Parts: sequence; C-alpha cells; structure tokens
Amino acid sequence: MDADRSIVTLCTDFGTADYWVAAMKGVILAINPRAFVVDLTHEIAPQDIEEAAFVAGPAWAEFPPGCIHVCVVDPGVGTRRAGLVVQTGRALFVGPDNGVLSAALPEEARPAGGRARRLPLPLGCRAFHLTNESLFRRPVSDTFHGRDIFAPVAAHLSCGLSPREVGEPAGRMLLLPRWSAEEKADGTLAGRVVHVDRYGNLWTTVRVEQLPAGPFVVGIAGQQAPGPYPSFEAGPELKALVGSTGHLEIALRRGSAAARLGAGRGTPVVVQSAKQRQPRDAGTRGRGAGG
Amino acid sequence: MDADRSIVTLCTDFGTADYWVAAMKGVILAINPRAFVVDLTHEIAPQDIEEAAFVAGPAWAEFPPGCIHVCVVDPGVGTRRAGLVVQTGRALFVGPDNGVLSAALPEEARPAGGRARRLPLPLGCRAFHLTNESLFRRPVSDTFHGRDIFAPVAAHLSCGLSPREVGEPAGRMLLLPRWSAEEKADGTLAGRVVHVDRYGNLWTTVRVEQLPAGPFVVGIAGQQAPGPYPSFEAGPELKALVGSTGHLEIALRRGSAAARLGAGRGTPVVVQSAKQRQPRDAGTRGRGAGG
Amino acid sequence: MDADRSIVTLCTDFGTADYWVAAMKGVILAINPRAFVVDLTHEIAPQDIEEAAFVAGPAWAEFPPGCIHVCVVDPGVGTRRAGLVVQTGRALFVGPDNGVLSAALPEEARPAGGRARRLPLPLGCRAFHLTNESLFRRPVSDTFHGRDIFAPVAAHLSCGLSPREVGEPAGRMLLLPRWSAEEKADGTLAGRVVHVDRYGNLWTTVRVEQLPAGPFVVGIAGQQAPGPYPSFEAGPELKALVGSTGHLEIALRRGSAAARLGAGRGTPVVVQSAKQRQPRDAGTRGRGAGG
Repeated sequence: MDADRSIVTLCTDFGTADYWVAAMKGVILAINPRAFVVDLTHEIAPQDIEEAAFVAGPAWAEFPPGCIHVCVVDPGVGTRRAGLVVQTGRALFVGPDNGVLSAALPEEARPAGGRARRLPLPLGCRAFHLTNESLFRRPVSDTFHGRDIFAPVAAHLSCGLSPREVGEPAGRMLLLPRWSAEEKADGTLAGRVVHVDRYGNLWTTVRVEQLPAGPFVVGIAGQQAPGPYPSFEAGPELKALVGSTGHLEIALRRGSAAARLGAGRGTPVVVQSAKQRQPRDAGTRGRGAGG
Repeated sequence: MDADRSIVTLCTDFGTADYWVAAMKGVILAINPRAFVVDLTHEIAPQDIEEAAFVAGPAWAEFPPGCIHVCVVDPGVGTRRAGLVVQTGRALFVGPDNGVLSAALPEEARPAGGRARRLPLPLGCRAFHLTNESLFRRPVSDTFHGRDIFAPVAAHLSCGLSPREVGEPAGRMLLLPRWSAEEKADGTLAGRVVHVDRYGNLWTTVRVEQLPAGPFVVGIAGQQAPGPYPSFEAGPELKALVGSTGHLEIALRRGSAAARLGAGRGTPVVVQSAKQRQPRDAGTRGRGAGG
Repeated sequence: MDADRSIVTLCTDFGTADYWVAAMKGVILAINPRAFVVDLTHEIAPQDIEEAAFVAGPAWAEFPPGCIHVCVVDPGVGTRRAGLVVQTGRALFVGPDNGVLSAALPEEARPAGGRARRLPLPLGCRAFHLTNESLFRRPVSDTFHGRDIFAPVAAHLSCGLSPREVGEPAGRMLLLPRWSAEEKADGTLAGRVVHVDRYGNLWTTVRVEQLPAGPFVVGIAGQQAPGPYPSFEAGPELKALVGSTGHLEIALRRGSAAARLGAGRGTPVVVQSAKQRQPRDAGTRGRGAGG
C-alpha cells in the first residue's frame, strides 16, 4: 500500500442524516490530511452490535493489508465499557469492547455457541485499551466517543502510531458467538436469520461447510425453500442458495423473501437433506394415495 | 488528470446498508491503492436497469476524461449474460451487458423506440466481453459479480490495463431505446415518466429539443401542467419546466408532484402547444359565455 | 494541510438517489482532479435551510483549516437570490445567500432572536457574491446551481483561486437567528426542538451555557424529562442530557423520544430548575398527604 496514504474505513449505526459521520471524518482529516476515509456503512440498525459485526466482517476481508477499520455501534457510550484497538496480522480495528469487533478475529477464536463471552485473544492477535487520553479530542463528550476517542485514535494510527501507544494491553475482549448452525443428532441443521438485505434476502447462520452434500430443503416460517441453487434466477421462485459470504440465504426471485415469508432477524431455519426427507415423503404420498 | 490517481465511479442498486459496496471498494483498493472511488449512487430501485442508465448518464457526463465508470444493476447475475467493458473517446465503462451501460454511448446509437436491442457499436466506441478470468477475484461467486468480476476489472483498468486485455471484442451490446417522446401527426408529443426524484418531480422522456417554440401544456394523470417556467418558484404551483439534463419535468412548488398527481414511473404525458389549444379553448369559452 | 490536496465538503438536501451529488463531484474533479470531496450529508429535509445550518455547523468545526465547505439547500434556485463565498479565518464557505451559511460565522454575529435578517459581516470575515460567470459551468441551468455555479466555484477555490476573484464584495448576508433559548423573568428557559436525530433524540435550542447550575426538569409535550444525565444509559428512561454539540437533548434510553412524545421540529420545551420546583412540589405533596 502507498505509504503516504492510509485507508481508514468507518462502520457505524449513525445513519448519514446527522452530523456524526462528517464530524468523525473532520477529526480524522485534521490529524491526518492524507487519510483516505472509506464509508463501510452507516446504516447498521440502531445499537445492533451483532448486525454490525456480521456486515463489517466480509467487507473488511476485501481491503488491502494495513488498513484501519473503525466500527462504532455503541449503546453503552459514556458508561464504563472500554475502547479497544485490535491488531491482527492483517489490519488494525478500533471500536468499543462490546463485541462489535468480533469479526476482526478468526471465527475459531469466538464462542462456539451460547452468549457473548470475554475470551483471550488468539496467537498473532493483540488488543489494547484506549486509555492514552493525550490522543483524544478534548473535551471528551459522554455521548460521542466516535468523534472524541475512536476517530482521533484511528487517525493517529493511520499516521503510523504503534498500537502499543494507545494504552494498556487487553488480555481479553468481548466476542460474539460464531455464526454457524447447530448440528442436530438427526442430521438437521438449526439456525436463524441474522440479517435481511436490501432485496429482502434472508441471511442465515448456516455456513456452506455445514450443508449436506446433495439437495436439501430449508424450513422457514412454515414454508419450504429447496436448494442449493446457483443464482437468484435459477430454480423455483422461493429457494435457498449460498451467498457471497458463505452463508445460506433464503431468496425470492425478483422479490423480497422477508416480505413473502413474514420473516426477519431471529426467525429460525431448519435445513434437512432431501435424501433424508424423500423416504418419509414417499411414505406419506403412498399413504395418501391409498387412503 | 493526475496520472497517479484514477477515478473509479460506482453506480449500483445495492443500497448502502449491506456489505456489497464496501466489498467492491476493498477489492478495488487492494488492487489499486491509489484509486479514488466515487459513489455515483447505490439507490437505484432494485433491479431497475433503465433507472440506472437514466441516472448514471448525466452524472458520467460531468466527470473528467479518463475515468472508469462501473454500473452494476444485474438481475441476471450468475446466468449467461456477459460482462462488458465499453471504451469511448471519453471514458471506460464496466458492467453487465443488459442495457445498463446504454448511456455510455451517444443517444443516436440506441434504438429510436420500441424495446431494448442488441446493436453494433458506433464508430469510435468499442466493447470487450469480460472473459479474462485471470483478472477476477477467485473464487467467483454466482451472486456477486460486482465484487468478483466488475470491481477487479475496473481496478486493473484504473492501473492502466488496456481494455483489450479483458477479453474478446464484442461487436454488439444490448441498448435501451432512447429517452425521447413520440412526435404525433397532430403535433403533440407522447412520452412517459421515467424517474421520480427526491422532491417528487416527475422526469419525462420528453426532450427539450422536441418542445414547441412557445408555451405548452402537459396533460398528466387527468390534470394540466403549463410550461415552460424557468424555475421551481416561478409560475403556478403545478407546472412543467426543462430540467438540468434537458428532460421535461413536472414539478409542484415546494411539494411533490408525484404525490399530488398520483403519478410515477411509466405514467403517460402528452405535450400540446398552447397555440394549438387556444382556438379550441377560445371556442369553448365562447360557447360557454353565450350559453 | 497537504498543499496538493484540498478538501471540499458537500452538504445538500439532494438525497443520494438522484444524479445531483455525483454531478457536483464530477464537476469538481474535472476542474481539480486532486480535490478530496467529502460528503457531509445529503439528507437535509428538502428545502429546510435551518436544519442544514444546524447540522453543518458542528461538522465544519471539526475539519482542518483551509477546507472549502459547500452547502446547497436552495428553494430559491433560479430566482434572484445571490450566491456567496464566505471567508473566515478558518475556511471558505460556498452556497446561496439564504441563511444556509449562517453557521460559518460566530454565533454572536447572528440575530439574537426573531427572524432571519441581512446583517453586516463581523470583523475578520468577508463575503463575495458569485458574479464572475467565467467560473461557471455553461450553460447555467435555472434549476441546478449546485452543478453549474457552486461546484465549479468551490473547485476553483480548491485550486487556490482567491475569493476576491469570484465577484463583488458582499457587505451583508442573510443570517438565521442564534440557536439559544429565551431566558424568562421567572428563571425558566423557553426553547424548541430544532432537529430530530436518527435515534429519535430531540435536539433543542437550549444551550449548555444557559442551563441552571443543578438538576432541572424539561417540560415537553405534556411530560417531564429530568436532567442532566451524563449518558443515554444513565438515569430514568426519559431524560435530558447535554449533547455533543452543547445543545440540550431529550432522549429515551434505547428508544425514540420523538416517537414516545409525539414531538418533532418546533415542539416547545421549557427548562425549570429543580430547586425552583421543589417548594411547590413539596407543597403539592403536603396537601396531597393531608387531603
């Protein structure tokens, strides 16, 4: 990467109608006029930490090494939750220690299931609490750490400041559970919808690696979506396919699956191999035909 | 233009709440950290190829020569529709061969009316199919060619790659019909609304060059909008004026013409010279006065 | 600031779904390919001059010296209202002379109350009418001065053009009244809501400097919001706190105060010191207890 131009990405739930995002950019450019600030998104649902982590992760993965990624979804702003810089082999991540930086780490470092937990960082990754107040914009507001703490720290990092300079090492950080489905004893996968995109496609916790080898059927909101299909145009109107991030999606051709199914964040999904189903279906049909 | 900094514009129907736009920017910056990526808009109505072409065209016209313009509205992603680079004397255009790049070419190169057609490129313009897979991000997803094909190709072009290197020459490309009104034998113009802007102004297919010399009246949704007026403030509340792209617009002063008229994309409009109308109107008034 | 890269910020009510913002960026980059264009916001409520000034001001304050700030909320486009460049010790501001640039000047330069007035500029600030047509994009549209006048003038300024070159000095400019509450004889403060943010927090005209020394209660829409609390999480669900720009805000923890109270732009607020209230409250309670 051009040594003279550091890329700083911003992901927030601030929307773009208020002054917040512009204020953060102003603070960054006042410290590093050569920073190249890229909006990841500012339309995370207000205070939805999990959605921020889910959306930011696959975007971060595409950027070149050496970027500074800022993520501020921060319902606890002004309380005692700490600020963090996370350093991986690839990039630096800045934000509150509330789980929103979970996708900075390899999936394996996160809880396999259950609730968010404070866990040690894996080998090759380090974190630091943002305690060096000399880096902050003064005075520090209790309601806008994005402007007063996260933006100036990111800007100083983009100028070459070592992450060690931002504060004390943090041995642990709060991590959201991995996004993967529960693999049931009967061979089915139990997951949930974790994001609804602009088109109304339902993104689920089911990972491509977990899917059965052949065709399968996804039960969701009382309906059945067969899969996998290679594209939005292929197959039946309502279908399941593997999205561009490796997560199973439920899609409606040229329409909104969310609206059709009345489904949204948290709606459960169950994936069953078509092979498993066929005998039972055949039996049902047999009985039906003979009844 | 600065030889070291290529401008890449992005126009999509991806919205800005998902990870797609950021992923495209990451891919571009990973290949060309000196690229200057400009958002044209990401709020094209989902899968609305014509709106994308209509909105992108007059924006592209303002950019300096030598830019790379990417436009991805792509309901057929993952099917056999080809990807294209279009080279004109002014810029390079990257996107699917589904009509969305129509405005890259001079208006005369497009069908005069009717439906979209696959036509030869005019003199001075060339197109190439995106078949050189060595330029793609791997693996290529079936649902996100924006990230995997269009963004990396645009980034390589912004680094100086010749358009010939992206693949085989394409003799023809799919082109939307021109945006102009039908000129009727009785002297009226028959057009339609092709875009509704943020204020509720209705942009029509009627071109300024087609308008009668003097005052006229636009019939739309059972009402009459006189014109032309020089500004939104001048004239009656509901009026017709020539917008900044040369298309006739129906506007309501400090309000939404779309809401007032219940009109939207596809609503027909008929333009009639006020001279033509006056005799008949005069006659009507005469009869009324004498009745 | 890097002498080779000028920052130009854009604040408009254009939204981001139309071609307008992109056209302005194209015009700027065609004149100055080294300009770094930053979106402040484009989601000002259509034609709401006061909201634009209120939102832009605290964002401008964070940017480094030497920026060019463009603000176009312009219901009078195409009428005789003038265009302005305002030069302060800190930055250059470009936009229509309709009050939208009010926050470029120190608060004291603006009317203390009442309506917007055309006032002389304070010491150290100058303004110039945009009359040098050689700087404009031609032809000048009557409906899009953002593209044809404000963007090219800003781009030329970002290339180093002296503000004097844009046109005749303007001795006065239209200025909105200051955002502060009326201080009543009985010690209460009478203000109003001037902005509702993405979370539904209600931003008022009441300034932190005006607040009573101790606890207070804000009467709004028939309800009482106590304050000040240091953060959104602290205190009762509905509360008052001092926001990051020094204005009093009414907030609902993890919810929308605007929706809860049915309040919005213009809703009156009254701030009363808790000390003032206590005797009366005590009396009320006493009567109640004895009744």
